[in-house]
Amino acid sequence: MTDTEVKVFPIETLREFSTRVFLHFGVPENDAMQAADVLACADLRGIDSHGVARLHSYFDMLSLGRINPKPEIKVVRSTLSTATVDGDNGLGLVVGPHANQLAMEMAAKSGSGWVSVLNTNHFGIAAYYVLKALEHDLIGWAMTNATKLVAPLWGAERMLGTNPIAIAFPGKEEPPIVIDMATSAAAYGKIEMARRRGTSIPYGWGIDSQGRVTTNPDDTVAGGALLPLGSDRERGGHKGYALAMMVDILSCVLSGANWGPFAPPFALRQEIPQRSVGKGIGHFFGAMRIDGFIDVDIFKHQVDDYIRVFRATKPAPGTNGPLIPGDPERESEQLRRKGGVPLILPVVEELLDISGKTGVPLD
Amino acid sequence: MTDTEVKVFPIETLREFSTRVFLHFGVPENDAMQAADVLACADLRGIDSHGVARLHSYFDMLSLGRINPKPEIKVVRSTLSTATVDGDNGLGLVVGPHANQLAMEMAAKSGSGWVSVLNTNHFGIAAYYVLKALEHDLIGWAMTNATKLVAPLWGAERMLGTNPIAIAFPGKEEPPIVIDMATSAAAYGKIEMARRRGTSIPYGWGIDSQGRVTTNPDDTVAGGALLPLGSDRERGGHKGYALAMMVDILSCVLSGANWGPFAPPFALRQEIPQRSVGKGIGHFFGAMRIDGFIDVDIFKHQVDDYIRVFRATKPAPGTNGPLIPGDPERESEQLRRKGGVPLILPVVEELLDISGKTGVPLD
Repeated sequence: MTDTEVKVFPIETLREFSTRVFLHFGVPENDAMQAADVLACADLRGIDSHGVARLHSYFDMLSLGRINPKPEIKVVRSTLSTATVDGDNGLGLVVGPHANQLAMEMAAKSGSGWVSVLNTNHFGIAAYYVLKALEHDLIGWAMTNATKLVAPLWGAERMLGTNPIAIAFPGKEEPPIVIDMATSAAAYGKIEMARRRGTSIPYGWGIDSQGRVTTNPDDTVAGGALLPLGSDRERGGHKGYALAMMVDILSCVLSGANWGPFAPPFALRQEIPQRSVGKGIGHFFGAMRIDGFIDVDIFKHQVDDYIRVFRATKPAPGTNGPLIPGDPERESEQLRRKGGVPLILPVVEELLDISGKTGVPLD
Repeated sequence: MTDTEVKVFPIETLREFSTRVFLHFGVPENDAMQAADVLACADLRGIDSHGVARLHSYFDMLSLGRINPKPEIKVVRSTLSTATVDGDNGLGLVVGPHANQLAMEMAAKSGSGWVSVLNTNHFGIAAYYVLKALEHDLIGWAMTNATKLVAPLWGAERMLGTNPIAIAFPGKEEPPIVIDMATSAAAYGKIEMARRRGTSIPYGWGIDSQGRVTTNPDDTVAGGALLPLGSDRERGGHKGYALAMMVDILSCVLSGANWGPFAPPFALRQEIPQRSVGKGIGHFFGAMRIDGFIDVDIFKHQVDDYIRVFRATKPAPGTNGPLIPGDPERESEQLRRKGGVPLILPVVEELLDISGKTGVPLD
């Protein structure tokens, strides 16, 4: 097998497959379609690690009864513009959209809405939620914690997830600016890929089990950790660490979920933490009405101008100049909507395994 | 002169001096005291670049009539939890606290408050605002744009300010977690310091005027630019760039201030942009009631636990383990409240220059 060997699937095939797999476990129809929609969004946007490549982990967790297929999602506290939501250990792909919807409804009434979520599970790509907000002329925010992978600066062990932050801003004629970024220097998947290829990793991505910066991906996988955005003290690693902590506290301490190293695992291969300090993992959503600040049209025209000014930046040597956040994902989506989603063979095999075990056909 | 030669002043001397300098320009008494309080906060917390070291720039701008000493600060739009504030070209040190207060008042009534500010000027350290929020059991957020210094990833020119993000979380027995970070890899002041000392700068801090990464501080000062947090594409420079853009849009596009490369200068030596796309610079403040999500006591106890767990992280070699954001600043404040604030001689000379021109004694 090579890294480039792929099989291409129409997005509707993957969406239908995911939906039926969720239905197989008793997930209600609307929830199953919702969950599949979040995965499809990742596959379309080229965030391959967060689409159907994760379906086997959801399958495992549902098979073992570690995720509740029929959660009773509840608002446990609220004000005019804030709320805490208990996801009843449901799929994050269902709890997340529910809580995001609540944030958007509060924004419609009160100008903004902010929801911290406990007792939930992996919610897919953060960009999904902020793209939903754009449909209503809202500025959406989304964050989540995740299983520990990242060391705090000057730490020698995994204490934080890759804790992403997403936010998006709509243009008028230009496409929206869509920010969705992990707070680690690099994705764990990139280190796994280097390991498979037998190549080294750049300085600043990871440490070994003793806390030393390493360029050997084996060191980082075997008991090491990812480094936060900024990598080391000189280049601002304390800032990436602080951002990961911010996401963690907003998502978990504010809601009552498991923070830091106590986030429960998403996949079977990950260990279960010895201590529990809350329920499930946590998310944090925000929505702000643009017209709570300025005319929507004026805002969008300025965003158009903003995008054009930044695209016209003098380019650094060997580049075509700065991208606008969201550019690569939008281009992927355009290609994949027409041409289908290329899946690497190990992912296809996982889907076939699910197919064999559930009887849901993959075609 | 050496970099280490300093003169020590009691904080009350500096506070009194700043207050009287602002009064000299007709700033109303409460506003003058407010502005001096923000500067004193920076001097106490060891953020030397943002305390009285900036007073000469405020002095210059007030002398030239480029800052309005008696602004009529107005709310130009609002909902239950959002507002836009026009600072009437006042001191950011006055407009900022006013807008932050409004965010906190909205939070008291509606659970959260979010204020975007146009037509304002440099607001001091972002941490000042989130520390105010802590006094009311609020989670405060503060951001601002600033004069261009930072290149977007793959750009070869200055397009963004160092656009900081601040947020803070209170503990019960432990001191609060206080995050206040520029979205650039390093501070411009560090590059200026390396230049004075004739030393090189680390890879990843800056580029030269052609957009090439450089370790020569002269290159970055003379027509080059700072790099965003993450430094280059491999280590996540697109993320720091995206964060700087987020701050810029929330602070400026949402309010109607000058964004990106069009931010007006803070100091005389900086050029005035050829284009104006709004009024002044912009800030963004948020405040969320902790008890809008969870019992304040439960939250604070969890933050205590959080801090203790992170302090107990296995340390990386050559370190004492991770710090908690805000540790260094709090230690500085404890020392300087008792022992006074050490100012380097060029700053003392600037204060003496102001003293000579205004007749306000420095003692």
